[in-house]
Amino acid sequence: MILTLKTGVSKKDADKIIAKIKDLGFQPSISKGAERIVIGVIGEKAIVHKQTFEVMDGVEVVTPISKPYKLVSREFKKESTVVNVGKNVKVGGKQVIIVAGPCSVDTWDNLLLNAREMKKAGAHMLRGGAFKPRSSPYAFQGLGEKALEMLAEARKITGLPVVSEVMDVRQVEIMCKYVDVLQIGARNAQNFDLLKEVGLAKKPVVLKRGMANTIEEWLMCAEYILAKGNPDVILCERGIRTFETATRNTLDISAVPVIKHFTHLPIFVDPSHGVGVREYIPPMARAAVAAGADGVMLETHPKPAEALSDGHQALLPTHFSHLIKEVKLIAGAVGRHL
Amino acid sequence: MILTLKTGVSKKDADKIIAKIKDLGFQPSISKGAERIVIGVIGEKAIVHKQTFEVMDGVEVVTPISKPYKLVSREFKKESTVVNVGKNVKVGGKQVIIVAGPCSVDTWDNLLLNAREMKKAGAHMLRGGAFKPRSSPYAFQGLGEKALEMLAEARKITGLPVVSEVMDVRQVEIMCKYVDVLQIGARNAQNFDLLKEVGLAKKPVVLKRGMANTIEEWLMCAEYILAKGNPDVILCERGIRTFETATRNTLDISAVPVIKHFTHLPIFVDPSHGVGVREYIPPMARAAVAAGADGVMLETHPKPAEALSDGHQALLPTHFSHLIKEVKLIAGAVGRHL
Amino acid sequence: MILTLKTGVSKKDADKIIAKIKDLGFQPSISKGAERIVIGVIGEKAIVHKQTFEVMDGVEVVTPISKPYKLVSREFKKESTVVNVGKNVKVGGKQVIIVAGPCSVDTWDNLLLNAREMKKAGAHMLRGGAFKPRSSPYAFQGLGEKALEMLAEARKITGLPVVSEVMDVRQVEIMCKYVDVLQIGARNAQNFDLLKEVGLAKKPVVLKRGMANTIEEWLMCAEYILAKGNPDVILCERGIRTFETATRNTLDISAVPVIKHFTHLPIFVDPSHGVGVREYIPPMARAAVAAGADGVMLETHPKPAEALSDGHQALLPTHFSHLIKEVKLIAGAVGRHL
Amino acid sequence: MILTLKTGVSKKDADKIIAKIKDLGFQPSISKGAERIVIGVIGEKAIVHKQTFEVMDGVEVVTPISKPYKLVSREFKKESTVVNVGKNVKVGGKQVIIVAGPCSVDTWDNLLLNAREMKKAGAHMLRGGAFKPRSSPYAFQGLGEKALEMLAEARKITGLPVVSEVMDVRQVEIMCKYVDVLQIGARNAQNFDLLKEVGLAKKPVVLKRGMANTIEEWLMCAEYILAKGNPDVILCERGIRTFETATRNTLDISAVPVIKHFTHLPIFVDPSHGVGVREYIPPMARAAVAAGADGVMLETHPKPAEALSDGHQALLPTHFSHLIKEVKLIAGAVGRHL
Repeated sequence: MILTLKTGVSKKDADKIIAKIKDLGFQPSISKGAERIVIGVIGEKAIVHKQTFEVMDGVEVVTPISKPYKLVSREFKKESTVVNVGKNVKVGGKQVIIVAGPCSVDTWDNLLLNAREMKKAGAHMLRGGAFKPRSSPYAFQGLGEKALEMLAEARKITGLPVVSEVMDVRQVEIMCKYVDVLQIGARNAQNFDLLKEVGLAKKPVVLKRGMANTIEEWLMCAEYILAKGNPDVILCERGIRTFETATRNTLDISAVPVIKHFTHLPIFVDPSHGVGVREYIPPMARAAVAAGADGVMLETHPKPAEALSDGHQALLPTHFSHLIKEVKLIAGAVGRHL
Repeated sequence: MILTLKTGVSKKDADKIIAKIKDLGFQPSISKGAERIVIGVIGEKAIVHKQTFEVMDGVEVVTPISKPYKLVSREFKKESTVVNVGKNVKVGGKQVIIVAGPCSVDTWDNLLLNAREMKKAGAHMLRGGAFKPRSSPYAFQGLGEKALEMLAEARKITGLPVVSEVMDVRQVEIMCKYVDVLQIGARNAQNFDLLKEVGLAKKPVVLKRGMANTIEEWLMCAEYILAKGNPDVILCERGIRTFETATRNTLDISAVPVIKHFTHLPIFVDPSHGVGVREYIPPMARAAVAAGADGVMLETHPKPAEALSDGHQALLPTHFSHLIKEVKLIAGAVGRHL
Repeated sequence: MILTLKTGVSKKDADKIIAKIKDLGFQPSISKGAERIVIGVIGEKAIVHKQTFEVMDGVEVVTPISKPYKLVSREFKKESTVVNVGKNVKVGGKQVIIVAGPCSVDTWDNLLLNAREMKKAGAHMLRGGAFKPRSSPYAFQGLGEKALEMLAEARKITGLPVVSEVMDVRQVEIMCKYVDVLQIGARNAQNFDLLKEVGLAKKPVVLKRGMANTIEEWLMCAEYILAKGNPDVILCERGIRTFETATRNTLDISAVPVIKHFTHLPIFVDPSHGVGVREYIPPMARAAVAAGADGVMLETHPKPAEALSDGHQALLPTHFSHLIKEVKLIAGAVGRHL
Repeated sequence: MILTLKTGVSKKDADKIIAKIKDLGFQPSISKGAERIVIGVIGEKAIVHKQTFEVMDGVEVVTPISKPYKLVSREFKKESTVVNVGKNVKVGGKQVIIVAGPCSVDTWDNLLLNAREMKKAGAHMLRGGAFKPRSSPYAFQGLGEKALEMLAEARKITGLPVVSEVMDVRQVEIMCKYVDVLQIGARNAQNFDLLKEVGLAKKPVVLKRGMANTIEEWLMCAEYILAKGNPDVILCERGIRTFETATRNTLDISAVPVIKHFTHLPIFVDPSHGVGVREYIPPMARAAVAAGADGVMLETHPKPAEALSDGHQALLPTHFSHLIKEVKLIAGAVGRHL
């Protein structure tokens, strides 16, 4: 942590700051420049005392040197984490994982058809919404436990492990009975009580990025989960809020190499929510894999007109199987496979 | 709701769309332009079927005409809502309400001193964090119920009604025992289960704007609360996420007149979180009142160096009482009073 | 300037970095922390060599300590700059300056009527577009020199000094013949050749903030003008580009206190472009003055239906004179006058 | 164009609006809904009169149906444009074009070495800055014409056509003597006089996206060039300004499929400026090609420590040739070649 003092700081204020550093058990490293005094605060976890110094007279700005996260950091754990999902799926290894399914679970026939078609085309996991975070209270809010039952049944038939979103701390227990992976959605990315709760669960978590979260803040959300004892977090980029309106959000593909640099956790990309327009989804799925994503999450539906949410952005089975072929080639180009 | 069809749409597709409109009980109003066919869908709540049309072949884009919210809309209720807080405070009337207090409750002495000083200077309500949403799991998370007890005690002594943030659906009940107003923070602004829960509570709610929420989305969050039966919502602008880093967030003062135009609900502004730098807070508090805000929420602390969070942006009693004098004059300039 | 070295940097790389610092005539101040080595580079203008260090092996990040601007900085010049406009207008003193007039100059009758009405209501300067930066090549591009002649004529009659936008380096000379103040629009805020050219002119400059410029970048644009010898720059906040669509831009009122903190230059606010909706403009003009702005720029038109651009956001004379009365009271509340 | 009237609009106002539509030679298509009256204005170029209706009493909002651009639109010209550069390079066909070279031209030896290495690795065009838009007036501003001479000489030796940025209308003529392609930088993307000037030039133009420009605004900038008679425009995505700071900008890869949908013009992606961190550039170059970009622009330098700008983000020859091999495979996966 570095303290930049105000120009013209009094000797008294500077001495007080230095005394405080020593009091807290750290070592000050003082640089008197032409324009300013800059003081390095040396010692582990000095950053915890950031606010202590921010309020002191004479301090202009406090600059952290180390990152605020620890357990999720690649400095803390060098080798990439591989998250085991169900019996056979490994997220974060050489294989690129394809997650497909409906935005919301609607009928059993549609779900089963969807799961079967997607599995045939090459998907590794089934997604499906049971509890839905909708911007309108009057919109369809999900079938709830009934949807979870259908997902579990579809898993039994197809063998595909299941991921579904948990919105409320009170749902964690029941979700864990049915699903293989708990998903935290973008709107709950900083619902810290929910993060703590899934941190205590014994299931892997897909943690979507909040619409307005920096990558650093997103990693802090993951840190909440790891700090509670759950190491199996899969990050998922799903688009950030920007001024552009041609797409639903701006899918930040560059988050993939940034995440790979700073953390050992695997990363998925969700182009369906990222762009929100059916025909832009396949190019973005390809881009995600080319950039190094460990998997892509795609909304698919055999009969979009019957979908209870986001039908306009669902890929049809034919789109999906064509896309999988392209993605396979791209995975190969970056030393991976499907 | 207006459907713009694709250029070169086939007659078959156009006929299907028109048939669908009639099937659903609406009336189509067809305009064949030089370049495109545009169809108005006439009838109440047509917007509910937006997705139905979005997935149809031949539809390029669906444009809503009416707003997605109803109960919060000024079209639905013309006169401005006045929310009663405690026995004597009325939010949304001629009086501009000043809410002051610490970011986090720390010691009883600090809290009582804070409350007394602020009341003397002219504050009408006391704020104080008991449960704190912190970006780091290692940061101070609030004193919890102990803080709520202190807030209730401070109310007893000063008469100031109390507002505090609720983060978790499981906290609503206990919060209601102690506080006068429940606050939903920016990070939980789209935690829909929490919105539903406070919608069932018998306390007024201060609903902060999510960092990446448009005003329309924010009003939909309020709609969630009203739809559950709680009409006493006070909106609170607290800054949005933009590219600018000179301030903690970008305080969107223009939200005040926009909110006044579209809804009957009152609006507060929180300059402390909005800018995050002590010396920029008074000018922004003045600006908020000049723009027509019904109140301002300010972080104050008699001894910022002892604050457990955000001490660097807390106003001292002297700053605060000077600011109140300026705000009083500005309130007068726009036909209001303190 | 502070160099944070990579964790596990080799002694060889660290030594090379230290040698480089000394070679360039600076003094290294080395802090060996628990996790990292941090080196302060002490000496004036060290920041100029930022890139030299960024490319060196072993350097993780280079953190500037001093601001990149100099002439515009309040550290360089403590007292606030007062810019003289025409014979009688002083921008940056106790008086709050009101600039009014049409977005585009259209007819002589409208311009004269506009100027007369606004002067009567209390305006101090006349604005009017002659060369218009329009997003469409098919939209009205301004009347050019003919408009400048009309503006000069209106000044002769009313005594109001005139400000108009210059878009092209080749227009600077002719503009200087007619106007009192050159305006640089948001879209040309980083047209550096144009900034250099107005830096050589003998006229004050209103420099609008670019839609995506941070305050620091904006001050660097001003620095371009001052560095060429023109000290008379008036900054003008006119809204930044964010995700919010309820207003044309997001008017960053907090830029006012930030600018006052970092620079001695005066600042205007332009609520008309900032919000783009007629009824939101008066509250934002009031907010700007309450926050400490040195003036407001407003679009006015006696017959908006005849306006050649932005008629929908022009204030009518009655709106304007009512607003001036409110602004006068607010100016008084913050120790200023109109 | 669709006019949504205010709720409770008077019959007189509505009649006036309808009369105005007819006066202008258009046909009104009136839909009286449950809540509002909506009027379609039918006829070519109705959108030109948008402002006329916006200022009328009773009109709440005017919604355009057709896009504001014409010449650049894929509706206007269905087949994709192929831009010929130099004698052998075709941009927008089956070949993916690689543009490489230094941010700024510095020494002849570095430039020649750079061009030779990049050509050997597979580059098709040479980039190099002669006139540099720098945020600081004190930073290196480019070698000017001397750099242009070197670029032309490097072309003679290597056969690589040359692209360089033009910043000032007065530079267009001299640039055309030396370069094969004129580049408009992000900061001048809405410098409309410069757009008009390159619209009159007889050279292809690379038009970068402005940092805060929507895709629609960007296409309007291209429309300025085409409207002046120059059809050879190559768009170039280079990152937009968002809240994320882990990368220099947020590279909007989704712009590629959006651009392909709305316009016939080819599109490049510039990952170097997009992310600004050397190790994130190769993944983003791969992502761009996977998403369907017609080419990538990359900053390369044989000796980054000698670079006069942006050396920290320049790729070395070894990085570059490795990247080219990956990009070749990805191009193949999407039916293209290098």
